[in-house]
Amino acid sequence: MSQVTEVLVPLRWSDMDAYGHVNNVQFVRLLEDARVAMLVDWFPEGLEQLDRGIVVARHEIDYLAPLNYRPQPVAVDVWVTRIGGASYDIGYVIRDPQSFGSTRYAVAETTLALFNLRDGVPRRMAAEERTQLQRHLGDPAPLRSRRSL
Amino acid sequence: MSQVTEVLVPLRWSDMDAYGHVNNVQFVRLLEDARVAMLVDWFPEGLEQLDRGIVVARHEIDYLAPLNYRPQPVAVDVWVTRIGGASYDIGYVIRDPQSFGSTRYAVAETTLALFNLRDGVPRRMAAEERTQLQRHLGDPAPLRSRRSL
Amino acid sequence: MSQVTEVLVPLRWSDMDAYGHVNNVQFVRLLEDARVAMLVDWFPEGLEQLDRGIVVARHEIDYLAPLNYRPQPVAVDVWVTRIGGASYDIGYVIRDPQSFGSTRYAVAETTLALFNLRDGVPRRMAAEERTQLQRHLGDPAPLRSRRSL
Amino acid sequence: MSQVTEVLVPLRWSDMDAYGHVNNVQFVRLLEDARVAMLVDWFPEGLEQLDRGIVVARHEIDYLAPLNYRPQPVAVDVWVTRIGGASYDIGYVIRDPQSFGSTRYAVAETTLALFNLRDGVPRRMAAEERTQLQRHLGDPAPLRSRRSL
Repeated sequence: MSQVTEVLVPLRWSDMDAYGHVNNVQFVRLLEDARVAMLVDWFPEGLEQLDRGIVVARHEIDYLAPLNYRPQPVAVDVWVTRIGGASYDIGYVIRDPQSFGSTRYAVAETTLALFNLRDGVPRRMAAEERTQLQRHLGDPAPLRSRRSL
Repeated sequence: MSQVTEVLVPLRWSDMDAYGHVNNVQFVRLLEDARVAMLVDWFPEGLEQLDRGIVVARHEIDYLAPLNYRPQPVAVDVWVTRIGGASYDIGYVIRDPQSFGSTRYAVAETTLALFNLRDGVPRRMAAEERTQLQRHLGDPAPLRSRRSL
Repeated sequence: MSQVTEVLVPLRWSDMDAYGHVNNVQFVRLLEDARVAMLVDWFPEGLEQLDRGIVVARHEIDYLAPLNYRPQPVAVDVWVTRIGGASYDIGYVIRDPQSFGSTRYAVAETTLALFNLRDGVPRRMAAEERTQLQRHLGDPAPLRSRRSL
Repeated sequence: MSQVTEVLVPLRWSDMDAYGHVNNVQFVRLLEDARVAMLVDWFPEGLEQLDRGIVVARHEIDYLAPLNYRPQPVAVDVWVTRIGGASYDIGYVIRDPQSFGSTRYAVAETTLALFNLRDGVPRRMAAEERTQLQRHLGDPAPLRSRRSL
């Protein structure tokens, strides 16, 4: 899918928990890192986009395989799965980079609500924001809960 | 609901991110803390239960209101929403303790898969585990995605 | 020592790393939590004190014993070890609460520099700040490096 | 200094705290990441070295300049500042990579104690470990406390 942006996200040794695997909460942290890189990539104004106000309204994540710390980063595929009037959804797959392996570690989806951080009120999506997001609009996130619908 | 266990989870100043709110990933960390306390409370063998092997297979979380750091803990309601053959679901509400306020910050659900950590294979739920979980079985988690079904 | 303020700091399961002990970096996080509680306790204006601008300029920490996660908090003794013109030092001992045990896990010292966060310049200590800190002034931190001097 | 190993350590957006700067505790986390990369670089057996048992016995860190999140990594210079019978010291400078800037953000030193993790007892340094460390032995860490001695 050409809509998909691949982001390489480095792991940290501390992402592992007492079981010796990357902790489930740290997977959600990896999604945050992928999202920040995505905003820099997708929007000309980069991180400023964050200041315009995007608030996480929902996460859903399926864990598929245990991940151990390694010097090699994980690859996170990021794309848009829904564009609404004042929010949009992002799909992700956390996986090995092609040069490293072929394991899929997690599939996830995040709903981002557009917010005006200064006065704390929701805002409508701007036209240029919608245009930009449409370039990255792809398939639904392959979550288990979606497959069963 | 008598099935619900209330766990008080202290915040840390570092739970806040650069926006000055408790970061969305740290909400998932609060769920982990509530889950650990729940296991100690529900199972006679307490934390040993973790060693018997419970692996997070899925999280879904809806963010309802911004949360700022404060010395007072949040209350997390925890209960069982589904009991399967080799997994079960936990519902949570993150909210103010009654003595402090009445805001609900998040609603979430986690699927826990039963695993044998030593040999890395899934395991069936033991009879006494099922009996224990049934005491805490309650309503579905009031997630937005469930309401629309 | 009456100068010492005892702060109870709860642990989190995630404070443990892949070795199954509370990670050395998380000890520094526990110091932060103790410091925040200390500011609330020592200064009438509490957390506002942070906004007036206190910046960590230095940490030194000796690790004395491994610490494992447990539902019981650690106790952190906090006191002032030096008062300067535009900075002060805080000593800490991380230990078991008396009701729980008698292990000392770490000794540490932090230099806090007074800063004006709005315009980013150092500031002189205010008279009432000095008065308040003097009530908590005690012995040097029992760090190994100090003992050898 | 040829003894110095330069490690590039990526930042995470979440390294920032509510002040909008990389949090002082996260600086200590960056040191951990640099140390893990250093072990992979210095020792043929790489991360296995960690399992042979290296325990952090002390940290000292001076904060020199505020650091903000950016997609570009920081450079961490790592070298050996002392070799003892059952421990050694590592010096670090956290700074901009040369292609990016010339700010020094922190200077630090860590004492690593050699430990036998399985039976929990200190161990003597092996001959090949000493040989390897001597290749990286350099100047004392330029900490403020050292300068005043």
